[in-house]
Order: sequence, then C-alpha cells, then structure tokens
Amino acid sequence: MDINGYMAIIIGISVASLLFVVWLARHVLSFDTGTPAMRAISDAIREGAEAFMRRQYGTIAKLSILLAAIIFVLYGFVRGHHNFDPVDSRMAMAWWITLSFVLGALCSGIAGFVGMWISIRTNIRAASAATRSLNDALRVALRGGAVSGLLVVAMSLLGVGGLYWLVDATTNVAQEKIPLMIVGYGFGASFVALFAQLGGGIYTKAADVGADLVGKVEAGIPEDDPRNPAVIADLVGDNVGDCAGRGADLFESTAAENIGAMILGAGVALAASKQGMAFAAGAIGVMLFPLIARAFGIIASIVGIMMVKTNEQEDPMKALNRGYFIAVVLAMIGFGFSTRWLLHIESAPNAWLYFFASGLIGVLTSVAFVFITQYYTEYKYRPVREIAEACQTGPATNIITGMAVALECTALPVLAISVAILSSYFLGEQALPGGGFFGTAVATMGMLATAAYILAMDTFGPITDNAGGIIEMSHQPEAIRKKTDRLDSVGNTTKALTKGYAIGSAALAAFLLFTAYLDEITNYTGTAFHVVDLGKPVVFVGALLGGMLIFLFSALAIRAVGKAAYYVINDVRQQFKEKPGILKGTEKPDYGRTVDIVTRGALKQMILPGILAIGMPILVGLSFRMFITEADPLIAAEAVAAFLMVGTIGGVLMALMFNNGGGAWDNAKKYIETGMYGGKGSDAHKAGVVGDTVGDPFKDTAGPSLHVLIKMLATITLVLAPLFI
Amino acid sequence: MDINGYMAIIIGISVASLLFVVWLARHVLSFDTGTPAMRAISDAIREGAEAFMRRQYGTIAKLSILLAAIIFVLYGFVRGHHNFDPVDSRMAMAWWITLSFVLGALCSGIAGFVGMWISIRTNIRAASAATRSLNDALRVALRGGAVSGLLVVAMSLLGVGGLYWLVDATTNVAQEKIPLMIVGYGFGASFVALFAQLGGGIYTKAADVGADLVGKVEAGIPEDDPRNPAVIADLVGDNVGDCAGRGADLFESTAAENIGAMILGAGVALAASKQGMAFAAGAIGVMLFPLIARAFGIIASIVGIMMVKTNEQEDPMKALNRGYFIAVVLAMIGFGFSTRWLLHIESAPNAWLYFFASGLIGVLTSVAFVFITQYYTEYKYRPVREIAEACQTGPATNIITGMAVALECTALPVLAISVAILSSYFLGEQALPGGGFFGTAVATMGMLATAAYILAMDTFGPITDNAGGIIEMSHQPEAIRKKTDRLDSVGNTTKALTKGYAIGSAALAAFLLFTAYLDEITNYTGTAFHVVDLGKPVVFVGALLGGMLIFLFSALAIRAVGKAAYYVINDVRQQFKEKPGILKGTEKPDYGRTVDIVTRGALKQMILPGILAIGMPILVGLSFRMFITEADPLIAAEAVAAFLMVGTIGGVLMALMFNNGGGAWDNAKKYIETGMYGGKGSDAHKAGVVGDTVGDPFKDTAGPSLHVLIKMLATITLVLAPLFI
Repeated sequence: MDINGYMAIIIGISVASLLFVVWLARHVLSFDTGTPAMRAISDAIREGAEAFMRRQYGTIAKLSILLAAIIFVLYGFVRGHHNFDPVDSRMAMAWWITLSFVLGALCSGIAGFVGMWISIRTNIRAASAATRSLNDALRVALRGGAVSGLLVVAMSLLGVGGLYWLVDATTNVAQEKIPLMIVGYGFGASFVALFAQLGGGIYTKAADVGADLVGKVEAGIPEDDPRNPAVIADLVGDNVGDCAGRGADLFESTAAENIGAMILGAGVALAASKQGMAFAAGAIGVMLFPLIARAFGIIASIVGIMMVKTNEQEDPMKALNRGYFIAVVLAMIGFGFSTRWLLHIESAPNAWLYFFASGLIGVLTSVAFVFITQYYTEYKYRPVREIAEACQTGPATNIITGMAVALECTALPVLAISVAILSSYFLGEQALPGGGFFGTAVATMGMLATAAYILAMDTFGPITDNAGGIIEMSHQPEAIRKKTDRLDSVGNTTKALTKGYAIGSAALAAFLLFTAYLDEITNYTGTAFHVVDLGKPVVFVGALLGGMLIFLFSALAIRAVGKAAYYVINDVRQQFKEKPGILKGTEKPDYGRTVDIVTRGALKQMILPGILAIGMPILVGLSFRMFITEADPLIAAEAVAAFLMVGTIGGVLMALMFNNGGGAWDNAKKYIETGMYGGKGSDAHKAGVVGDTVGDPFKDTAGPSLHVLIKMLATITLVLAPLFI
Repeated sequence: MDINGYMAIIIGISVASLLFVVWLARHVLSFDTGTPAMRAISDAIREGAEAFMRRQYGTIAKLSILLAAIIFVLYGFVRGHHNFDPVDSRMAMAWWITLSFVLGALCSGIAGFVGMWISIRTNIRAASAATRSLNDALRVALRGGAVSGLLVVAMSLLGVGGLYWLVDATTNVAQEKIPLMIVGYGFGASFVALFAQLGGGIYTKAADVGADLVGKVEAGIPEDDPRNPAVIADLVGDNVGDCAGRGADLFESTAAENIGAMILGAGVALAASKQGMAFAAGAIGVMLFPLIARAFGIIASIVGIMMVKTNEQEDPMKALNRGYFIAVVLAMIGFGFSTRWLLHIESAPNAWLYFFASGLIGVLTSVAFVFITQYYTEYKYRPVREIAEACQTGPATNIITGMAVALECTALPVLAISVAILSSYFLGEQALPGGGFFGTAVATMGMLATAAYILAMDTFGPITDNAGGIIEMSHQPEAIRKKTDRLDSVGNTTKALTKGYAIGSAALAAFLLFTAYLDEITNYTGTAFHVVDLGKPVVFVGALLGGMLIFLFSALAIRAVGKAAYYVINDVRQQFKEKPGILKGTEKPDYGRTVDIVTRGALKQMILPGILAIGMPILVGLSFRMFITEADPLIAAEAVAAFLMVGTIGGVLMALMFNNGGGAWDNAKKYIETGMYGGKGSDAHKAGVVGDTVGDPFKDTAGPSLHVLIKMLATITLVLAPLFI
C-alpha cells in the first residue's frame, strides 16, 4: 500500500470519528434540561466556566503566539542552516516547526474547549435524567464525557496524520524525516496542556480551599451552601480542572506518543532493512503503524462506550468496567491485526507476535496501575484505613501517616513500569535485533489504545459531580439524590483511576520520547548519539537540575493555590460585609464576581510555574553549550537528555506521591463520614478535613501538572534539540 | 618521603588528637555537677540514654556480625578468585574486606558511644556553669561537644591510615590497590551510622510526639512537665538522635571520603605519570594527601575550639562563628601547604594552585549551605514568616505553605552543588588533563576540613538543650534560665546548620564516591568503565529503582516514628491509670519504664527500613546480572551505578525538603510564640503546633537518615562491586 492508502484509512477514521462526535453531542443535547430551579444553577456554572475558559484560552493564546514567534526567530534567524537539516533553507525549517507548533496548540485548545462546552451542558441533562432512572443518568453522563474523550483522540490523530500528509504532499522531504518536521505539534499540544492544567488546577483548588475556609471555618455555613458566594466558583472548578485539564493532558500524550513512535519506527525500519530483515509493509508502513493502531483504538472505544448500560440495582462501576473490557478486547484485536499487517517481517515470521506481546504488556500495565491506584486510595484497603485511624490523635498524626502512605505508594507503580520497560524492550529485541526501543514504543501504544474510553470515564467524573450539586442545590427528593450520589462516588473513582493511567502512560511514553530525542540528534548530526553518560560531571549536573526542577515546580504550583485562595477569601469576606443579608438568606450573593476574581487570580498565578517549566530546559540546553569541546560536541544535548530523564523519574515519583496521597486523605475523611471513629463532626473528622484540604492542591494541582510537565519536557527538548547542537 | 614518613605524620597526629580528647574529657568532667535536684534529673537522662545505647549497640553489633559473616561467605566461598583481584587467594580477599568492615563498624560504634557518654555528663556541668556565667556555660558545652567531634574525626583518620599501613606492612599488595582492600572500613562505618541514625531518629521523635500527644493533648499538662512519664524519654532522645546519630553520620562521611579520595588519587597519579606529568611527591604522596590534609584540619579545629569565649552581653552565636572562622583559616593554610607539598607537578608549576582553588570552592560551598539553611529555617526571613502567617487560617494552610517552602528550598542548594561540582572539575582539568574528578575530590576535602569543629557545634546542641531542661525542671531562678535559653536557641541554629553541612558534604562526596566506584570496576576488570548510560533500558530502570528507594525508605522511616510513638502513648495512658496520683503530683511516674518501652519500640522499628536500604542495592546488583551479555559484561555494574547516582540525587533533594521543611515549621511556631498572630495559646499557635509535630519526623528521622542512606549506598556498592561483575 502506498502512503495515500494509509492516509485514507487514518484520516478517514479520524474524520468519521469526529462526525460521530458531532452526532453524539447532538444526541446528548437532545435530552431535557430539568426544572427551572435546576437550570438556574446549571446556568450559573455554565457562565462561570465559559468566562474562565474565554479568559484562560485568551491568555494561553497570547503566550502561544509569543512562543511561536520566538521559535520562528530562533530557527529562522538565530540558528544557521545545517547540512543535516531535512529541508533546504532555514526559513522552511522555521516555517514548518512553527506551523506544527501553532496547529498543535490550536487543536489542543479546541479539544479542551469543546470538551468543556459539552460537559457543562451535560451536567444538567444528567441531573434531569437521574429523576427518571439510574441507567439514563449513567448513559447521558458517560456519553457527554465520550464527546470529550473521542474528540481529543480523534483530533490528535487527525492533526498528526494530516500534518504528515501535508508535508509529504507539499515538500520533497524524505518520508522518514517528516516526523522531525512535525514534532512541533506535540510541543504545541503540551504547551497548551501545561497552562490548561496549571490554570485549571489552580482555579479549582483555590475556589475549593477558599470557599471552605471562609464558609465553613469563618462563617460557619455548610459545604455547598448557596449563601456562600464562592459556591459556584467551586462547582465551575470541577469542570475546568478535571475536564479541560485532563483532556489537554491526554491530547498531549497521544499526540506526542504518535510522533515519538513514528520517529522510532522510521529508525527501526531503516535498521531492519540494513540487516536484510526488511518489514513487509516497508518503512512507511512501520512509521504509520502507530496511527493505524490508534485509529482502530478509537473504533473500539466507541463500541465500548455505546454498550454501557445498567439497571437500578447494579453498581454503576461494574457497568463502566464492562464497557472498558469490551473496548480493551476490541482494541487488542485491532492491534493484533495491525501488527500482523504492518510489522510483519518475511524472514522472521514471529517478529510481529513479539511486537503484539509488547502491546499486551502495555495493556496489562494500565490494568496494574488501575489496581494499585485503587489499593492506595479506596477505603476498603489498609492504607486509607490507617490514615483514618491516625485521625483519632489529631491532624498532625493524620498528616504524618498520610505522608508515609503517599511516599510508600510510589513503590509498586515503579516496579510495574520497570517490568513493562524491560520486558517490552527484550520482546522487541527478540522480534528484531535493535528493535528493543520500538518494543517499548509498541507497549506505550498498547497502553494508550483505549485512551478515548478512559478519558470518557474521566470526564464522566465532573459531570456527575456537577449533576449531584445541581440536584442538591435545587432540593430534589432524597431518592434522586441517592442516585446522583452513587454516580458521584463512581465518578470519584474514575477520576482517581485516570490520574493513575495518565501517570503510568506518561512514564512509559517518556522512555519512548527520550529515545526519540536521541534518535533525532543522531538523525540531525549523522553521528550515532545513544549514550547519556551520568559519569560526566556536566551530564550529572544536568540530571541534578532536572530533579530539582520537579521540586521547585511543585513548590510554585502549590503556593499558587494558596495565593489564589486568598483572593477568594477576601472577596467573600467583602461580599458578606457589603450585603449583610447574604448570610441571613435575604440577599443573593454575586457569584459571578467571585468567579471572575478567582479566574484572574488563577491565571496570574499560573504564569510563574509555567515559565519555569518552559524556561529551565531551554536555559540548561543553551547555557550548557559553553561546555562544548571538539572532543565532545554533543555535551549540551547529552546534559539535556539527563535533565529530561531524571526530571521524568522525579516527576513520576512526585506525581504518584501527590495524586495518591491526596486521594487517600480525601477518602480517609469519607471513611470517617461513614460513621467510623465518631463520624461527621467528631474530632477525628475535623482532623480528617485538615488532611483532605492539604491533599487538595497535591492531587488536583501539583500532581496532574507534573504529568503534563514531564511530557512537555520531552516535547520541548524534541523541538529545540537542533538548538543544542 | 617514603610511606613510613607519611604514616608517622598521619598516625602521629591522630593519636595526639586522641590524647587531646582524653585530656579534654577529663577537663570537662572536672567541672562541678550542680545541686542534688539538678543531679536527679541528669541521672535519669543518663540512665535512660545509657540503657538505650546499650540495647541499640547490642542490636547493631548482632546485625554487623551477621553481615560480616555474609560478606565473608560471599567473598570467600561464593565468588571465585579473579586474576584482577589485588590479592592471591579468595580467602585473603574475604579476610581483608571483612576485617576492614568490622573495624569500621567498631570504630563508628566507639565514636558514637563515647560522644554520647561525654555529652550526657556535660549537660549537667553546663547547667551548673550557667549558674556562674554565660561564658563558662558556653565553653563547657562546646568543649563537651568537641570531645565527640574530635574523637569522630581522629578515629576515622586513624582507622583508615592504620588499616592502610597494616595492609602495606603485612601483604605484597601494590600500594595503589590497597584502598580497594579497605573499602570495607567505610561500609562498616556507614552500616553502623545507618542504624544509629535510624534508631536514634525514631527514638527521639517517637518519644517527642508520643509525650506531646498524650501529655499536652490528652492529659492537658504542659510540655516538659515532670508528671509526664515520657518527659525523660524525650530528653534522652535529644542525645541519641542528634548527638550519637550525627556523630556516626560524619564519621562515615570522613571515612568514606578519605577512602574514595585515595582511590581517585591513585588513579590520577597513574594517569599523570603516563602523560609525563608525574607528581613530585609520587603516587603515594597523592594517595595519602587526603589523610595529611585531614590531619591538619583536626589541628585547626582544636585551635578554633579552644579560642571560643564570650561575655554576658554578646550573642553566643557570634563567639562560635569567630572560632569557626579561625578554624577555617588555619585549615586552609594547612590545606595550601599540603597541596603545594603533595600535589606539586614539576612540569606544571601551577597545578597545585588549581587544586588549592578546588579546596577553597569546597569551603565556600559549606558557607553557602550554612547561609541557605539559615534563610529557609530562621524566622528573620520570608519563608518561615510566610508559614507563620498561614497559621492564621488553620493547620491545613500551615501544612500547605510549609510543604511549598520545603519543596522550594531544594533549589538554591542544588545550584550551589552544581556550581561546586562543575567548577572544581574544570579547575582539576586545568591542573592536569584527566584531573577533573580529583578536583571534585579535593573540593570535598576542603568542605570536610573543619568537620571536627562543625561536629563540636552540633553536639553543643543537645548538651545545651538538656542543660536547659535540667535548669527548668529543677526550678532555677529566671536569670539563669534566660542564659540557658539563649544557649539553647543557639544550639537549635547549630543543629540546623550541621544538617545543611552534612547534606551538602554528602552531595559533594557522593560524586567523588561514585567516581571511585567506576574507577574500582575499571581497576578490577582492566577495561575502562566510565560510562553510565541512562539510554540503556536496564540502566534507566536501575536509575528509576534508585529514585524509588528514596521514597519508600522515607515512608518506612516516617511510619516507624508513628508506630513507636504509639508504644509511648499506650504506656503513659497505662501509668496514669495504674497510679492516679501521678497527675495530682502525689506519685512519681516510672520514667525508666517508658524509656525502656520506647527503646525497644524504636529498635524494632528501625529493622525494616534498615534492611530495605541494605538489601535493595544488593538485590538490584545481583539480579541485574541476568542481563549480562558478552557484548555488555558490565551491565549490572552500570545499572547499580545509575541506581546509586539517581538514588543520591533523589536523596539529596528529599533530605533538603525534610530537613528545611521541618526546621521551618518548628521556627514558625516559635515565631508565633514571640507574640505574633495572637501568640501562645491562640488558634494560630495551635495550627503552628500541628506543623511542628508534622515536621518532627521529617527533620529528625527521615532527613538525617537519608544523609546516611546515600553514603551507605555509595560504600555498599564500593564493597560489593566485585560481586556485580
């Protein structure tokens, strides 16, 4: 098959999926929107969320344009043309890299915006459906989430495939060098994801912590009380953090992974034909394998999503798991088919089977992450119970025990990742000498095959959370509240699982991405560059700085929440002072004003950690050029590689610590609320609330931002690599 | 000069220093021991501390004998003899490695035990001296601390020097290979240090947290109230954690650094003569340079310590700083003299100057660490004030802000270390092509030159703390209490500074130690082994596991405190129940029983983290042998190197976070106690107490144990390296 044939499949499936998304969105929007009381609340959330998104994406757009200009100048004017460049002039180079960056940023923005748009319209419909049946509510919420999930994955596929095809059709760049021209797409996506996750994460927790402190602690009114001017900001937060943030996160994952795997695929196909073990489908088939496999994964996810149904008695989590199982099995069938089709080697007839096994390892890794996350964050198990028990002796022992759990929970995921990397690497080597790294890439593709389904489950979380809030604030009958409570608790689980999945896939993809970075440098310079030698002082210092970035970035992200929360507290205090009727229930608070203030606060606070994350790898790469000698011309590139790798190791460990620690504190409080150790209102419960509050910026700001950060580090180094040599 | 001449200087100075230590101890003990009421308290502390030390060192002795047997069996029976071994038979190899391990363990044990012995006898004498004058109290406390500090450094020097001389005198091993035979000394020292620091750290915080929770929270009696049965256990804890633990920590630093620098020195001397740039003092002079420089450092520290005096008005910290300044200047003069004498190269007359500059960089690095630590932990500066301010909105915001500060405070020290490594490396390269790593070693020597003085200041901490406790519990007049309070607050500062110094020197020494590891593998196998390639999946997984070890170890250390604290709480509850008169003040609690229970609890709880720390590097090294191929015979050794390096990076970052975070929380509480935000008893103060309690196991258990852990990792890999190839 020639490139046009492959492209027809890839672009065809992604466009078809987008059309399906449009149908699905219309289908979800066709559901009814409940009572006027419900609509009033939903409208307030929608307005707040849209106001935030407009401002946030406005800021991100400005930052993106600025960075695009910088990239263009660096490539077009500062950096000279090199013989090893894939195009003839430095302007052409600048043009393609900048274009792909802008497209990546744009697509990520669209995916986040649309996902959020549908999610704030689905919450009211899910709430209304809950007045009819649990099954209706579940399906509406999941399908609303699926709009976001499918859109993200289909757009990422269309973007990478379309760009590849565009470069191929309009330039004479060698096909195996095209991925080098479009790495900017992944970087654009991760740049937007970083700010979307940071801004959303800061917003959601600033509103949450601020509302709690000023409402519960100072004014003595309960959580989610409509007299609290910050209550709508809090509900808005769930959408902008979990929904838009995680969408951008996984958009980036799939885009970066596609490009990285294509770079590796080009390399492995070349190596194979040199050894006389050419792939039957040719280099182009191997290189486009990631896109084809992903396309089949989208179809599998659609089928899985549409099959989900439940009844009034069943645990809704079981229904979601059933759908996931269907999606996994179908995706693996498609995966097996595409490995046989595109990764077959005539002279080594078992090679494709080894690659297929690598893909299965990726799937098993995602399952392992799901189980480990459950173990550390659900109150059925030892860790959360231990934390709840420690609440009896006050907040200090709660925090100490929680920190011990948070630190401990890094061990099993690291073992799982280690086994996955090594076994997929050795399977790859079995398939084809030198195919080891491609084996790890295939494992990552396996892990991400069902990304659309996972993301649908994730967006399901804020939708059901909001639906519950709408039902509660509009004073619906107890029986309906029970239904939305059940869905909400399932949503909490799926949100936690997605974080585990996101960090697991980031860890696995990271290895693929820095192999791609090494390959890219090799490709540019023509000299093999595969050694990142920690024994060199300059490289070791690069590694040390990479580890430090993780700590400093986390510090800034956590501090940003504290600062933005103060804006909320001050505004609420002022509203209580200006309108004394609010607390008596005779006057309505100005929800919009609080939303606006926390929006501006969050966006202001996201700048500093964002600049650190972008600036530090560039600074290290450019300033370490001073260590370049004739004997060691790639020392700066090598130091950046160590920066990236050790930054990734630190980022994975810290993200696990933050995510699971925060989740465990949250559920320890919930466990006490089931009546343990004196239940709600007891001293143990008060201690539990402290832990929950501490965990909030951990699990919803610092942890998720770290996922994005480590992928952003990988894509920024991929894009700027030519500047370091 | 031949080896006997050098040895006469080294052993002569260390023996003379030990004789000085004996004189100093007798001098300190000749001071009077105050009133009977003071003696009663001091006796209780002494009995408790001695009981703990007996039990702890009994346990450590058993573990050491077990490990010595394992090492002997592994080297004598499991591992075959290799041609590249420095001795002729595997039994000889097993004998020397085991002997040096046992000697290292024994010397570390003696140093810890004697330091502690004198410290619990100095506290009462310092308390009594405070009834006369501030100057007397300061000098008694510092000289008591100096007994410990000088003993530690002199013993470490005598041990390394003596062992070297013993091997040289009784075998025919080539002189430059002798360091390979005595690496066990450093490992023995770090093995004991690990358990001393872990056991002491768990003990001190279990007693502290337990006493606070059951006394202040449950029974409502103030801190340090004699009715609390855990109060003596708490005072004992200061000695066993800070004094014995840090003594063992720095004993290990100096021993491991001496041996590592000797291995590097042998390598650099060899390389120099190959290029026709032989050192004037020969290989033996270069190799013994670290010991000679250290010997001069001891003399400088003695002079500095004896010069310290103050008057009633002066800030005692200034007096200590003056003494430190004298010690630094003298040590640098000695350092300059020894570089000119031993590191001079006829054909490169400036070489020794470059090495001397490296040494100065080491000194400047220690100064930088001291300032950075002060910035992050003293309430004169922004970070602690920020935490105190956050206490106004409750314990949750206090913890969140404190975590942000703790994470942030890793940045500047990492920059300082990065600059130190790179500049000393490049100075070394200037001195002599290939001399870069030796340059970093010389910087480490510069940093550790005044270790004895620093350690004297550190042990000064628990002595003045205990003196304050004795004065308070024996109800001395206000004026005297003010004096001991001033000394106590200086002691808190010196304790914090020593931790900064210990982690800084550990970070710098780590780079030296893993270069020594690579050199050792090269030396054994005869093939150059200088590349630790993170791009290989097996090596990357080794690195990932090294990072994970740090998190898991911290989790176990923190959890151990919680568990041991429960033993205290339960015992105190039972004592209150058994003797209702205790709380009324009519009956005396059984202090000894609580001391005994927390002793047993702490020792039980130190086993698991200890075994993890020892077992994991061995397990990685041995199990990764399965990846050895003909093409890559050193892959297991390389993975262990990455494990060590990334473990070190993670350990340095986490230790900084724990130490400074804990210190900042502590002082934020103290800042509130000066009357800020409502002062003692206010809600802000209560929130501050929560932060202080959370910080306790961070700064006194996990953080200091991590210092020891990273050096233990370096020495265990040095000792077991031959098993990985």
